[in-house]
Formats: sequence, C-alpha cells, structure tokens
Amino acid sequence: MKELKGACIIGQSGGPTAVINASAYGVIRTALDSPCITKVYGAAHGIRGVLDDTLYDMGAEAASELALLMHTPSSALGSCRYKLKDSDVDDTDYKRILEIFKKYDVRYFFYNGGNDSMDTCNKISKYMQKVGYECRIMGVPKTIDNDLYGTDHCPGFASAAKYVATSCMELYHDARVYDKNMICVVEIMGRHAGWLAGSASVATYMGQGPDLIYLPEVDFEMDKFIADVRRIYDESGECFVAVSEGIHDKTGTLIAEYGVENAPVDAFGHKQLGGLASTLVNILKGHLGNIKMRGIELSLLQRCAAHCASETDVQEAFLAGKSAVEYAVSGITDKMIGFQRTTDENGDYKCEIKLMELTEVANTEKKVPREWINEAGNGLNQKYIEYVLPLLQGAPKLVYENGLPRFAHLRKVQAK
Amino acid sequence: MKELKGACIIGQSGGPTAVINASAYGVIRTALDSPCITKVYGAAHGIRGVLDDTLYDMGAEAASELALLMHTPSSALGSCRYKLKDSDVDDTDYKRILEIFKKYDVRYFFYNGGNDSMDTCNKISKYMQKVGYECRIMGVPKTIDNDLYGTDHCPGFASAAKYVATSCMELYHDARVYDKNMICVVEIMGRHAGWLAGSASVATYMGQGPDLIYLPEVDFEMDKFIADVRRIYDESGECFVAVSEGIHDKTGTLIAEYGVENAPVDAFGHKQLGGLASTLVNILKGHLGNIKMRGIELSLLQRCAAHCASETDVQEAFLAGKSAVEYAVSGITDKMIGFQRTTDENGDYKCEIKLMELTEVANTEKKVPREWINEAGNGLNQKYIEYVLPLLQGAPKLVYENGLPRFAHLRKVQAK
Repeated sequence: MKELKGACIIGQSGGPTAVINASAYGVIRTALDSPCITKVYGAAHGIRGVLDDTLYDMGAEAASELALLMHTPSSALGSCRYKLKDSDVDDTDYKRILEIFKKYDVRYFFYNGGNDSMDTCNKISKYMQKVGYECRIMGVPKTIDNDLYGTDHCPGFASAAKYVATSCMELYHDARVYDKNMICVVEIMGRHAGWLAGSASVATYMGQGPDLIYLPEVDFEMDKFIADVRRIYDESGECFVAVSEGIHDKTGTLIAEYGVENAPVDAFGHKQLGGLASTLVNILKGHLGNIKMRGIELSLLQRCAAHCASETDVQEAFLAGKSAVEYAVSGITDKMIGFQRTTDENGDYKCEIKLMELTEVANTEKKVPREWINEAGNGLNQKYIEYVLPLLQGAPKLVYENGLPRFAHLRKVQAK
Repeated sequence: MKELKGACIIGQSGGPTAVINASAYGVIRTALDSPCITKVYGAAHGIRGVLDDTLYDMGAEAASELALLMHTPSSALGSCRYKLKDSDVDDTDYKRILEIFKKYDVRYFFYNGGNDSMDTCNKISKYMQKVGYECRIMGVPKTIDNDLYGTDHCPGFASAAKYVATSCMELYHDARVYDKNMICVVEIMGRHAGWLAGSASVATYMGQGPDLIYLPEVDFEMDKFIADVRRIYDESGECFVAVSEGIHDKTGTLIAEYGVENAPVDAFGHKQLGGLASTLVNILKGHLGNIKMRGIELSLLQRCAAHCASETDVQEAFLAGKSAVEYAVSGITDKMIGFQRTTDENGDYKCEIKLMELTEVANTEKKVPREWINEAGNGLNQKYIEYVLPLLQGAPKLVYENGLPRFAHLRKVQAK
C-alpha cells in the first residue's frame, strides 16, 4: 500500500460519553506522532465544523493538556446532530466537504460517534470514493447505549454502566434507611435498547440493587408492573425499580407519554412532561395509595460521569482511536473500528480490534438478547452479568486538583 | 473520674450521608476495643430501635465487614425522623428508654445525626440527669446541610459538596457540547442553608462550573433571575444555573411552590410538584422562548455518593465517632463533638476536636455568611472557596469487587 501524505481531521458527534475524548486523544496523539500525517485538525461540532470551515489546530495544544483528554468527559471538540442528505438527492454538503478537504489537503478523516455518526462517516466515505478523491476514512465508535451493530460492545457504555450500577447501589442504601419504607423508581437512558438500564442488575447481583428492571426489549404491561411492585412492597416493605426511558406498551406507545394527559401546560401551550420516573410514581400512587415514593432521573449525569469511569473503557476507547489512525496510515479506509471479545492465556477477558464495514454499521441497532432477560421481563439474568462485569473493571486514573478531577482546557486555536 | 462499666448504644438518625457510617464505625470500633464497655448495641432506626427494643449486637459482626462501614453510604443501622416530646409534657418515651437502658445495663449512649437528632440526644441526656440514672451521653454530628451551630463544619457536608462540585464540572462539559446551546438548571439540596449549593462554586472556581448560583440566604427575585439568565445567554449562548432547593422570595414563599398552580393533580387530588429545577425551567421558557433547557435534580444521589466521598471527610467522620467514645469513657457526658479549624506547623489545614454543649447545638441553624456571597446574590466569593477547599481533599479508599465499591453487609443479630 502506498504511503499517503496529508492532513487529518477528527470530528465528534452525537451525545457525549465519559470516554469519547479518550478516543479523540487516541486519534490525535497517534496522528501527531505519525510521519505521514502533516497536520491534525479538530472539527468544531463534528461535521458542522467542516462545513463551516471551523477547524482547530491540535498541534497548537500543550501535550500535557491533550493527555488530560483521556479522563475529560463530553466531546471536547463539540458535537452536533446534523444529518447529511443522500448525495444523490442533494450533494451541496458533500461538495463543500470536498472543498474543505482540498483546501487543507485532508487525506485522513476520523469520525467519532454512534449510529447516526457512522451514517455520516459512511456517506462521506462513499462520496469521496465516487468522486475519486483519495482520503482514508475511519469510524471510531462511541455510545452509552451500546446499540452499535457487530461490535461486542462500544466505548462509553461501560463507564455509563458503572455509574448506573454504582448509583443504584448507593440509592439502595439510601432508599431503605427509614423505618417508614419507600418505593423508588430510577429512570435510566436508552430509547430503543436496554443495555444501560440493564446495568442496574449489577447492583442487584452485588446484593444491593433494584428489585425490578424494565427494558424496552420487552413490551411493558402496566397491570403486571403494578402487581410486581405491590407484591414486593407487601413482602418486604419497600420496592426499588429501574426503568429504561424507552419502555413502551405493545402498541409502541412510550410509557413516558402516559403522563401527557395530566401534564401542565407552559406559556406556549406545550405540555410539560415530568419524565418517566415521575409518571410511574404518579401511576403507582393512584393504585397503591399513600406510600412514600420517589422518582429519580439520572439525567445527563450518567453519560458524563468521568469521575466514575471504567478504566477498562477508557483504555479501550483510546485503543479504538489509536487503531483507527494506525489502520488508516497502513492503507485501510471505509471501515469502523469494532471490538472482539476473546480470552488471554489465563482465560481472562481480552478485547481485540476488528474492522467492520461502515455500510453495515450505519443505522443498525443491536438490542439486548431476549434470553438475557428473565422470563417475567422484569430483570436480567446471569448471561448479562457475565457479559458486562469485565467491562466495568478499574478505577479511572484521574489527575486531581483541589480534590476535584482536573479536566482538559483546550486552547482551540483556529486553523488558517 | 471514676470508671463506668456498662453497655453502649449507638443510634443514627436524620437523612443519610456518605460518611455517617464512618462515624458509626468510629464509635463501634472504639467501643468494642474499650475495656469498660461491656457490650456494643446498634439501635435499629435510631431512637425507635430503643423504644421498640430492637437492638443489634455489634460484637456479632465480622470485624472486616464492620471496617467496610468506613466507606458505606447511608445509615447502616437505619434511621428515623422521630421527635421526642418534652418530658415535662409527656414522659412516656423517656420512661421506656430508661427501662431499656436498665434492661441492657446501658451506661453509654451515642447519637449520630443532625439538628433534630441533637435535640433528641439533649433531651435524653437531661432526663437521665434528672432521674439520676448514670449514663454518659454524647452527640456525634452529621449533616450534608452543614448547618449545625458552633462547629467549623460537619461530617457529611464535604463529601456531598465534592459530589456536587464534581457533577457540576461534568455537567458543564456536557451541557455546552452541541452547536445549539442550552440553559441548564441544577437543583441542590438545602432547605434553609446554602452551604451545599454553594459548593457548585468550586466547579466555577475550576473554570468549569455554573454561571449563577442562588442560595436561600438571599431573597430570590424572579425578575432579577430572568434578567441574569438572559444577559449570560445573550453574551455566551448558554447559561448554567445552580439553585438551592430552599430559595424563597422576600415573603418567604418557596420558589419550588411557584409551580403548584400549574401542577397536575394525581388520583387523590394532590398537586404533583415537578421540583424546583423544572419549575424554573418552565418559567424561563415563558420569558426567553424556545431555547433548549434542562432541569436536573441531583436528588438522593448527592447525599449517598460514597464513591465520590472526600477522604478528609471520611477520616474526620471516623474521628468524631472515636472521640465521642474516648471522651465518654474518660468521664465526659452531655456534649456534642465539634470541629475546630486550625493549621499545622506548615500552615496547612488541620481539624481538631472540640466539645460543645448539647443544649447549645440542638435546633440552632448556621447559615452561609452574607459576606461570602457576592453583592448581586448570584454567586459565592473567594471566602467560601477558601473555607471549603481543604475539606474536599483526598479520594476515598474504597474496596472494590467486580469493579464496583464493596459496601458493608451487616448480619444484624438481634440482642437478647
């Protein structure tokens, strides 16, 4: 494979994770150290930064500050949720991207994100092939949802899972402290797949977690739910429930929308949703009476809790970025980095890199297998636990200042 | 002072903290090792466990499991919010407590809690003195609110503050990631005092925190608040606000109650409050229009996040419990353990134990000094930062299992 000299762009897109910057650092550090990559640019807010010609010169950053990206949450370069049209329908954006690639002599493009971002990455890759512009394009996966097709797991998931499991363990202790008991409902992110909500089961496995866990993989039945909660509350005087935000009934209606009817209206006449947890708490109060209840939404905290990251996840996220550059430099293009689970000589968990077709990954969703969920559809079984435990290992190697994590401050010098 | 031989009871009451069990462990470990303490009992759910004769034999627990209490959140013995009547009005409870003390030959009583718990502790102490039952009674403070009178700070506060500051730093990164900007309102515990909400200012001090912070110490003016948010949003395209749940207007009405009018009604006709953060977001939407906004309630997580505790706080909490036993054994009674801030030979922060009159502590609240809050009443100044920083130092020395904290599982063998 002939050597390709030129600049590279790294862009981040989609929702933040605790480790997406570790992947970005894997790309940036490896690219800066690579003799055939002449310049390393960071795109401001993903593909929007390319379209807007807002690129940062990553070589202008202090090496020590870049290294802090390993444990800095969210997307340091900024993110977007911009969807490219099909180039057959409208190639305006593609022509603009090509113009920018030519302007900066970009021969390497790394895109760091989830399903939608892999779609963007795939479309750009295919367009550049079509117009014959030589550029090696690689997808670097991330998502707390863990729903990317074909890879054993996805960077970002394990750290969010560790935060969810840890928080559930702590809430277990808190929620049962009084002599008057409580029903507690925790809402966890995940619109279509229950991987993350499933991680609450690790707290249960530790003997200190939810009694009931509901995922979008199983149609939610309100009557069964109320009966489940009533039974456990009657038996033990408390009940701790974890739900995925995406749970829905058999007609596909989100349970979060059950609250709409009763919701207050804001100044613009929009219904104000209180969130799934409070909707379920209100419904339970209607059926179980005056029991102390609390709905808790883990909200954005679960996707940005770098202080509680899995170091395994951090290192794998870095490896994904690093491998993307190494493969591209060696001549590979039009692929996404994926993970293959294997075992080492001691039979312990080991993660290896595999290459996947961008076309295959884009827009495909992977769900929790039904056989990893218990028959009643209100908990996970040992198969899920065995899958997830190795991913959670290791405390993050944070740098501290004033007792708090020291996150990266980038200069963001605009490229000329 | 003559040696007093007999059993001891330790009880915990009020809301949980990340380190209240470290104080309990300080009491239990020191009492178990003390030659004149014959038995160590843990009261189930605070004073309720004494009234109900539900005491656990702490000597029956494995030493290794007890040691895990150092980093186990919430109140391992269970808590209560039971208020004792004045013994002059109704001495039923006091007679019952005396009966139990006599039954188990209890000569030491340690009560671990906040303002209300110190009131309980004080009342029992005074009653035992009145009836001439020899028993040494000591209060061991805890509260995330940090509002106990007369002590420099209170065990439990610093760990909650560290969680709040860390979470705010992480949310800062998350909330500004998109090209379309956001207004984010974070709600922090603290009904009457703003110590904990104030800790969001440490994130700001680190360059990655809220733009505006409102405490209950300053009357909240809605017009000024909306103008503050509008100004910052117009300047920077985003705004990050932290509020104490107890903020109120000049008439004393809680801002959280501003949402009541619009609130939905549940099956029993009760208004369902969405929480202060969502109330403020709804009000902002009414004035600033269709900007992306998010209200986040840190909820119970902030008081039980042992994984993010301050090791300084953990060690001081243990010291408070240990000192209570040592003082009691040496003849002291009717006091609460307090903290005095001093400096060591290098001029660094040092915490010393001081003894305080239970009568003085009970039911008195300490607020954030007005001169530690900026003139506009929407942020903290350097005085607060200097006060709080030394308290946050040190990562908690957690024991891990399966990548998650290993918390204590007590056997809770009931005393006969």
